Amino acid sequence: MSVTHAAGFAASGVVAGLKSTGKRDLALVQNLGPRKAAAAVFTSNRAKANPILWSEVVLGDGIVEAVVLNSGGANCFTGSFGFQTSHLTAERVGEKLGVSAGDVVVCSTGLIGVGGQDFRDKVLAGVDSAASVLTNTGGEDAAHAIMTTDSVPKLGVVEGDGWSIGGMAKGAGMLAPGLATMLVVLTTDADVDAPGLDGALRAATRATFDRLDSDGCMSTNDQVTLLASGASGITPSAEDFTAAVTALCADLARQLQADAEGASHNIAIETIHAATEDDAVEVGRSVARSNLFKAAVFGNDPNWGRILAAVGTTGAEFDPYAIDVTINGVRVCASGEPDRPAEDVDLTPRDVHVLIDLKVGDATATILTNDLTHDYVHENSAYSS
Amino acid sequence: MSVTHAAGFAASGVVAGLKSTGKRDLALVQNLGPRKAAAAVFTSNRAKANPILWSEVVLGDGIVEAVVLNSGGANCFTGSFGFQTSHLTAERVGEKLGVSAGDVVVCSTGLIGVGGQDFRDKVLAGVDSAASVLTNTGGEDAAHAIMTTDSVPKLGVVEGDGWSIGGMAKGAGMLAPGLATMLVVLTTDADVDAPGLDGALRAATRATFDRLDSDGCMSTNDQVTLLASGASGITPSAEDFTAAVTALCADLARQLQADAEGASHNIAIETIHAATEDDAVEVGRSVARSNLFKAAVFGNDPNWGRILAAVGTTGAEFDPYAIDVTINGVRVCASGEPDRPAEDVDLTPRDVHVLIDLKVGDATATILTNDLTHDYVHENSAYSS
Repeated sequence: MSVTHAAGFAASGVVAGLKSTGKRDLALVQNLGPRKAAAAVFTSNRAKANPILWSEVVLGDGIVEAVVLNSGGANCFTGSFGFQTSHLTAERVGEKLGVSAGDVVVCSTGLIGVGGQDFRDKVLAGVDSAASVLTNTGGEDAAHAIMTTDSVPKLGVVEGDGWSIGGMAKGAGMLAPGLATMLVVLTTDADVDAPGLDGALRAATRATFDRLDSDGCMSTNDQVTLLASGASGITPSAEDFTAAVTALCADLARQLQADAEGASHNIAIETIHAATEDDAVEVGRSVARSNLFKAAVFGNDPNWGRILAAVGTTGAEFDPYAIDVTINGVRVCASGEPDRPAEDVDLTPRDVHVLIDLKVGDATATILTNDLTHDYVHENSAYSS
Repeated sequence: MSVTHAAGFAASGVVAGLKSTGKRDLALVQNLGPRKAAAAVFTSNRAKANPILWSEVVLGDGIVEAVVLNSGGANCFTGSFGFQTSHLTAERVGEKLGVSAGDVVVCSTGLIGVGGQDFRDKVLAGVDSAASVLTNTGGEDAAHAIMTTDSVPKLGVVEGDGWSIGGMAKGAGMLAPGLATMLVVLTTDADVDAPGLDGALRAATRATFDRLDSDGCMSTNDQVTLLASGASGITPSAEDFTAAVTALCADLARQLQADAEGASHNIAIETIHAATEDDAVEVGRSVARSNLFKAAVFGNDPNWGRILAAVGTTGAEFDPYAIDVTINGVRVCASGEPDRPAEDVDLTPRDVHVLIDLKVGDATATILTNDLTHDYVHENSAYSS
């Protein structure tokens, strides 16, 4: 499973002492080649954490030897000292693995503002122990080490024809477009060069992670990295490879949604017959951002008026009084008027499907979100304390 | 107080049976003249309720004889029957007061989708009783009749030099730019024509109600109406009049914020040294829309990282690593690095002040919001049940 499923990779997850719980909190993933190609997408937040600033440079040449990830501290808004820490972390990994620090991606997650001397010391010592236990079965340990408020590790695998992709993800809150508080590492033994990886990864994340909007908040540390070892010796078609990466990202995105902080419902908002795909995304996202709608779902209240009120805030092409809204199979609003009684809608299942028919064109998009619950408020009011 | 403070107005608030609580739920405000000038601003939501569609037409000629308002039903997404109900309501008011239905503004608030035959019957009967008890001391009854989840009526008065303005407002949730679930009626005995009222009202709401963003949700029924009777015979300068209208709107906006559903903190987000006022508004609004920040404030947790993460999502001009953030007088972040310890910040008072210094230009704006609490989730998950 996970990042050591595909051939040509080793990984480990160790206890560096960053988490107060004493659980694994530092992960290392090494690409053993023969190819060392990589691509990555980063948060679109302008407030980028130090590991993001470092990793963007590393990805410049499309060559990555290893990825080191820590939980227990975001190393964001920690100044030049924090950037030096990311740099020193890459150098320490380089020393231990005999590779260039310039080919080592660094990812951090946890509380913003944490990244001082104690953080640095623990991360560097953690690198030493992580490097010493790298194995081709270390994927699960690595997946555990990147967990923050996640209740379970997120792992996935997709099999190609003689090649495969595996991956791990973390993220339970701050899930929003432009990525989430989300770290993802994908590894494949397919023989694909950096441009090929980049094209497939951008197409995949655009349709998956970028359409997961749990709480509308955008993180400072998000990164999805795809590594190719070429160990299978097989080069799949761009179509096949992109489809596989997309399938794996979709699987991991659903796992993130299912484990979102405090959520009691997984909500899929499907917008159909939009003029453009962008319109469909904008409409779905507006509903996913409505606290009133999300609180109503928590209360098992099919309050469709709050859906239409959110749709009305968008610039998408539609007639507000032509729209149909269907919740869990029950059309509660037809052409902007009440249709079947809201009482017919059963919102007790965890999975909720909202179908919005704009009746304009042929474009469709689905946005994944969660409900707004007491537990969400509780977890996020206590997060840093 | 309220809409009957200024000379030349009569008002009433009665029980029409729309509220299950049996409390007052229909209000009527009549302009006795001699002038019958009016201006209004409406929700920018594209999904406009039937009373909004009706009232936009009424305001076309700048003449308004009366405003009728009901709580207990939004008459939104109720189809052509709902629009006919708004029309019939204006006609009934016209009959009772001997004025043209085309000069009667209609406002509704409550649950979207409510506006059927029962609603129509109760509203029309309520108009009859409201018209029969109009008095120049009816302002407080009217203010009570427009309350929904409000815990207190919102009333205000500003005195000019020989003239005055009074007003009433309702709104406790769905408070967002482009107006909120908010109905406001302002009355003045100043002798100002419709264009003068329009200019003053737009300037005032832009700097007050449009900067109140309690929960990021935009309503379908919002309307702020300003009526001038001219009864004082005095025409103030545009500057003095705009200042008075702005002061009254600011007072009412603070009352709405203080009574926001479930809130335990009133948060003022002041952005300074922005390149433009629009930048300052965008930055403040991004923080006001961050559920993570709002939940942290509920937990008395000065999580400044969540403030910077929100600011980083904007397109405003700034260097993320040059920003200072001060919470309740304690500068917790200086030039993008930790400054004084977050523990020094006392978030136990209800009023919270967040100061964001972008260090770019000279523009400033303040956005008012509330924290995200268990009670907010509870009230809005149970609202329609």
